[in-house]
Amino acid sequence: MQPVSFSRRLRRTPFTQGVEAAGVKGYTVYNHMLLPIVFESPESDYRHLKDHVQVWDVSCERQVELVGPDAGRLMQFMTPRDLRGMKEDQCFYAPIVDAAGGMLNDPVAVKRDDNRWWISIADSDLLLWVKGLAQGLMLDVSVREPDVSPLAVQGPLAGELMARVFGDQVRDIRFFRYKVLQFGRATFVVARSGYSKQGGYEIYVEGGENGMPLWHALFEAGRDLNVRAGCPNLIERIEGGLLSYGNDVTMDDNPFECGLGKFCNLSDDVDYIGKDALRRVRDQGPKRMIRPIAIDGPAIAGPSEPWSLFSGTQRVGQITSAAWSPDFGTMVSIGMVETTHFGAGTELNVETPDGSRLAIVQDAYWT
Amino acid sequence: MQPVSFSRRLRRTPFTQGVEAAGVKGYTVYNHMLLPIVFESPESDYRHLKDHVQVWDVSCERQVELVGPDAGRLMQFMTPRDLRGMKEDQCFYAPIVDAAGGMLNDPVAVKRDDNRWWISIADSDLLLWVKGLAQGLMLDVSVREPDVSPLAVQGPLAGELMARVFGDQVRDIRFFRYKVLQFGRATFVVARSGYSKQGGYEIYVEGGENGMPLWHALFEAGRDLNVRAGCPNLIERIEGGLLSYGNDVTMDDNPFECGLGKFCNLSDDVDYIGKDALRRVRDQGPKRMIRPIAIDGPAIAGPSEPWSLFSGTQRVGQITSAAWSPDFGTMVSIGMVETTHFGAGTELNVETPDGSRLAIVQDAYWT
Repeated sequence: MQPVSFSRRLRRTPFTQGVEAAGVKGYTVYNHMLLPIVFESPESDYRHLKDHVQVWDVSCERQVELVGPDAGRLMQFMTPRDLRGMKEDQCFYAPIVDAAGGMLNDPVAVKRDDNRWWISIADSDLLLWVKGLAQGLMLDVSVREPDVSPLAVQGPLAGELMARVFGDQVRDIRFFRYKVLQFGRATFVVARSGYSKQGGYEIYVEGGENGMPLWHALFEAGRDLNVRAGCPNLIERIEGGLLSYGNDVTMDDNPFECGLGKFCNLSDDVDYIGKDALRRVRDQGPKRMIRPIAIDGPAIAGPSEPWSLFSGTQRVGQITSAAWSPDFGTMVSIGMVETTHFGAGTELNVETPDGSRLAIVQDAYWT
Repeated sequence: MQPVSFSRRLRRTPFTQGVEAAGVKGYTVYNHMLLPIVFESPESDYRHLKDHVQVWDVSCERQVELVGPDAGRLMQFMTPRDLRGMKEDQCFYAPIVDAAGGMLNDPVAVKRDDNRWWISIADSDLLLWVKGLAQGLMLDVSVREPDVSPLAVQGPLAGELMARVFGDQVRDIRFFRYKVLQFGRATFVVARSGYSKQGGYEIYVEGGENGMPLWHALFEAGRDLNVRAGCPNLIERIEGGLLSYGNDVTMDDNPFECGLGKFCNLSDDVDYIGKDALRRVRDQGPKRMIRPIAIDGPAIAGPSEPWSLFSGTQRVGQITSAAWSPDFGTMVSIGMVETTHFGAGTELNVETPDGSRLAIVQDAYWT
C-alpha cells in the first residue's frame, strides 16, 4: 500500500463524506473515482459482510446514458447478448466487445425504456467507445455520463434494511430486476443486484445532493442490524467467482474465454460488433478459459502482476486474483488456463513471490 | 493521502522496480497505471528539478497507435489542429474534441510516418474513442496500445545527461521534434518535450524489457550530475501553466476556454469532428477561460474539489489546481474564470477550506 493523493482528477463521490466518517482505511481508483477498498481489514470486512449488512459506495460504477430513437439499436449493436424481449424493469449483464471479440467492459445494462438505457460500467471509459460509435455511425442518440451514483446494500440482512427505508415492496424485486422507488422527494432505480454473492440491492442515486441523506437514513434504520460501511471484498468476490475487469478480464480476452459464452447469441437474429470473431471462437473452441483454482499452502498477498501457471516446464496460464479464504481454509483464486489443462482436478504449479506452489483447478467456485 | 493497493488493474510499469528502489513515497493512478507523485517532498523534488536533472517514469502517458492507409485521415478527423505539413519527426500538442467541442483528451500526436501515428495520451481511455470512430466509420486502420512506455529526462542538465547516453546528436533535436536513436540493440523515439518548463526529453521506450537497462544507464551516466528519480511536479507545472486533463480540463470544456484556440483551424481547409461547434464558440467568443491566478495568504493544500471564485456574491469561476510556490512566494493556481472577470489584475474571492481569500487574476504564468 502506498499513499494516493486526492485531486479533482480522482473524483470524490456523493458519499465520500460518509465513507470517511466511517473510517475508510484505503481507496483504489476506478473510473477516475475513489472506491473504498478496506474499512477494518479485508478479513473482518468479509466476516461482517457474510453475517450482517453493509452499505457500499460504488459510485465508481458510473453510468453511460443512451437517450434517443437509436438508443436501443446502438445498445444491441454493442453487445453479443440478445436484448430482444428485455423488459423495462430488467438489468442484463452484457459483455461489450470490439470487432476482434475482445472485452472492452463487462457492464450491467439497465433498460429504462426503449429509448433510454444506462450502462453501469466496470473500469474503462466505455463512454468514449459509445460516443465514438454513435459519431461514426451517425446515430440519433445522445450519450453522456449522468449524475447517477450507485449505492449498494449487501449482505444477508440487506432485504430487511432496504424494507425499512423503501418499504416492503423491495422484497418483491426479483434478481436483476428493478423498481423505481421514492426516497423523500427523489425517486431512484432500486435493483436486486450487486458485486457480492450475499444478496442485496443497488440504489442508482440520481442527484449527488441526495447521497448523504440516503446514507444517513440507511445507517439510522439499520443500527440494530449492525449495519456498517463496506466495499467490494476481494476474498468474497473471488470465492463467488465475480470477475474484475482489468484484473481477470482485459481487451485481450473474449467472452468465451471468460466463461460468458452463454451471453453470446451467435445466430442470425441479432447483429453486433464482433459477431464474426466470436463465431470463429465458437467453431474452433476457446483456447483458454477462466477457472477457479485453489492454491496450496499458507496465506500470501494476492498478485499485483499475474502469477504464471506451469504444467512441468510448460506455461499453461496465469492467476490474476487470489486471496486467503477464512471460510474455506485455502488460497482461493481466479486464473486463465489453457483448455488442455483446465479440467477439474488438474494439478499445476504457480509461481508466486513466495516460491512455487501446487495449484489445483476446481470444478466450481467456493459458494 | 490514503493508501492504494496494487493489483493488475493498476498496472506497474517497466520502471516500477527502479522507482521503488529510488524510494517513491506515493503514487497516483493515471490511465490505469501507476504514476509516482512524490519522492522526497513536493518542495524538495521541485527544487531539485529546477537545479539539476531528473528521470521520470511517465509510462502512464500510454500511446494509442494508428496504423494503416486511413491512419492520417483519422488522426486529422479527430483534432482541430491542422496536421497538414507536419513532418515525420514532429510531435504536435493536439486537442481531441467531441462533436460538441468538448475536450476528450489533450495528447501529443507523434507522426511516425503518413500511415503510422502515436497519440501520447492524458488520463482518459482515448483508445476507445479512436476504436469506436474507426469501427463506425469503417476505416482501414488498426488501433491498439503498443508496448511503449515514455521515460522523461527533465531539468537544466537534461541535455548533458542525454548526450552521455545517446550521443551529442540529442543536442540537435529541436523542441517538439524527435530522432530515432540507438540504445544497445534497441532504437527509441527520443523527443525534445516533457511535462515541465525546465527543458528536457521524452524517450518512448519500446519493449518493456528495455526499461530497466535504460534506467540504470541514465543513473550511472548522471551520478556526478546529481541525477535523481522524479515525477511531474505539481508546483512547477502550475507555475508554468501546464494543464492537467481531469483537473483543469474536462469534457465540459472546449479548446478556446482552455486557451488552446491557437491550435484550432476553423477554415474550410481541414475537416474534423466538432468544427461546427468550435466555429460557434469563436463567433460568440468563449464565455470563460483558464487563467493563472495568485491566491493571497500562507500555504495551504490544493483543491481535491474545485474552489469557487466569487466577485462579491456572484460565482464567476473556480480554481482547479493550486500549490505554494517557494520561488514566487505565493499560492499559484489555475482556474476557469468567466470572461467578464478574467482580465489581469481582477480581484476575486476564492472559497478555500481555510476560508475566503483574495485571488488576483494574473497576466501570465510564473515563468
